[in-house]
Amino acid sequence: MSRHNRAVVLTALPDAELVADLFSVVSREVPEPSDGEVLTQTRYLSLDPVMRLRMLNEKKSGRSRSVGAVVAGRTIDVVVRSRDDRFAVGDVVLGWSGWQEYAAQPAQSLERLDDPTRSPWVWLGALGRPGITAWLGIAHVLDVAADDTVVVSSAAGAVGSVAAQLARHRGARVVGIAGGPQKCAWLTEHAHLDAAVNHRAADFESQLAAALPNGATALFENVGGAVMDASLAQLRPHARIALCGLISQYQAEAPYAYRNFPQLLENGVSLRAFRIDDHVDLHPLAVAELRAAWQAGRLATHETVNEGLDRAPHALIDLLAGDGFGKHYVRVTDDPAPTTHGTRRKEA
Amino acid sequence: MSRHNRAVVLTALPDAELVADLFSVVSREVPEPSDGEVLTQTRYLSLDPVMRLRMLNEKKSGRSRSVGAVVAGRTIDVVVRSRDDRFAVGDVVLGWSGWQEYAAQPAQSLERLDDPTRSPWVWLGALGRPGITAWLGIAHVLDVAADDTVVVSSAAGAVGSVAAQLARHRGARVVGIAGGPQKCAWLTEHAHLDAAVNHRAADFESQLAAALPNGATALFENVGGAVMDASLAQLRPHARIALCGLISQYQAEAPYAYRNFPQLLENGVSLRAFRIDDHVDLHPLAVAELRAAWQAGRLATHETVNEGLDRAPHALIDLLAGDGFGKHYVRVTDDPAPTTHGTRRKEA
Repeated sequence: MSRHNRAVVLTALPDAELVADLFSVVSREVPEPSDGEVLTQTRYLSLDPVMRLRMLNEKKSGRSRSVGAVVAGRTIDVVVRSRDDRFAVGDVVLGWSGWQEYAAQPAQSLERLDDPTRSPWVWLGALGRPGITAWLGIAHVLDVAADDTVVVSSAAGAVGSVAAQLARHRGARVVGIAGGPQKCAWLTEHAHLDAAVNHRAADFESQLAAALPNGATALFENVGGAVMDASLAQLRPHARIALCGLISQYQAEAPYAYRNFPQLLENGVSLRAFRIDDHVDLHPLAVAELRAAWQAGRLATHETVNEGLDRAPHALIDLLAGDGFGKHYVRVTDDPAPTTHGTRRKEA
Repeated sequence: MSRHNRAVVLTALPDAELVADLFSVVSREVPEPSDGEVLTQTRYLSLDPVMRLRMLNEKKSGRSRSVGAVVAGRTIDVVVRSRDDRFAVGDVVLGWSGWQEYAAQPAQSLERLDDPTRSPWVWLGALGRPGITAWLGIAHVLDVAADDTVVVSSAAGAVGSVAAQLARHRGARVVGIAGGPQKCAWLTEHAHLDAAVNHRAADFESQLAAALPNGATALFENVGGAVMDASLAQLRPHARIALCGLISQYQAEAPYAYRNFPQLLENGVSLRAFRIDDHVDLHPLAVAELRAAWQAGRLATHETVNEGLDRAPHALIDLLAGDGFGKHYVRVTDDPAPTTHGTRRKEA
């Protein structure tokens, strides 16, 4: 075991766009686990848009907990020393190490993975928090049914791709919005959406309207800004919106002015912003349904893999720019990589 | 009976602010009622922000039904000729004559008023569509309870003033937002709100924050724009918004960019836009509760009365500018005016 623990620390909150200069790689002592803790070595870091939202909220509130700290996030870890009966050396766990090589974690915060050979994005993506988030939006907030026409933005993202497919499983017509022809092709060919529209196209709004000849009854929103504004124009009377994210707004220089906001009034639309941790009672049901769909081969997935802890800042920046798709993560250790269906990136 | 029917017609849709030049007073023949219709003479015209919203929607959709037509709206009328058994000459009715002196109206669209001596704003305001709208927002959409802290914008308006008082009747703490010290004084002294904040004050945002030391659990929104943005910043986790109107946006040159929209996500807020005609099943319950509160002397009201049909365009412009408060209406006939608690305006 290395005696040094390399970690990535946030040095300041971003004013506008996140840049790599705001992160610094530091070397620390490997921590000593206390009673009830285990020492873990990090294998995979999850990259999630909510990381940027947290920085925005800290900037607005003036209460920063992130600056000077190891970047927080979900990880897949292997136990290298245990001071708790529930875990043994070699166990693979879902943890919260954040962006560092080693962490001492309370045993009760860890979850043993029942099949560690499975690709990591399954636990960080479709069967993890992004998948649960998608399920909550589709099954709980929107309660999508076969007579719905559902629009999903960031439909090739870790959350959106699962949301769109869950809506399809319920019999709804599903139109995905994604950035670029490659993602759109994946959505129709692999995720079996009814249509996919490229929001980077010059005629995006008319393409979206053409894909929704009868409008939309439900919107699963991840993006905000001009992408959401175009969807608002397509909503039918009494449409429902599940507001899951506003990724385009997390580092926008100025807030977006929605032209179609008054149409909510005209159409009697309801919008519900939801948070994964407000519905912990539903997580077991979500995971059970997601696992069943996964095991039945009904959840197409994609990942964007980044190699090495040092790439983590760039990898998060890429995610926020819509560069890459599916579940974004970082492989930290040199363990043999599992089979993936995605893109692999190394530091140039 | 006059042989001429003076009417106010909209000549074009407004591009931005509504101006009086867009209206024209025309003289027409008094119409002949058909079988099943009654000829009515108009006594009072209701002025409502939704009139401007309708013009905006027609402008956006390119489908105008208003241009060249008599301005549509709720009225109090007296029957001058009847071709339906249900109505006799002299009956006072709630109708839909719009901005004209006479109208032939289908009998089934009319409602006989059980006490025509009562002030007209009761039937056009607190016990009419504004009151029902207020009730739907407070009782149905928000389901306000004693542990709520409710913010009501345009709280001295026809809808807001009823909404704020209904929330008080349910035991909630109620903070009203209104334009100017006169309206704010009325809200605390006559409508018995817990606090009222003037959105025209330079330190409006900090005054609102000070009036809400523990934030707000519910928002009854009539205004949109900067007023709503300030309220969004005060919402507690899981707060609910009843979106009733966006009066500041109906003739804004550009859509407002909400700075605090991402806080909906952070707080898991739900927003529901609602329309009075989507809940006709609840109208009898609403009217019964409103009437009981009214008869018990628990609904303070105010009106802004405009004298004469010719003043109707200016009166609507004043309403949209927040000039005057409570229920705005136009007295068309020379009948003796009922007692009012409000302001009376004549053409200069």
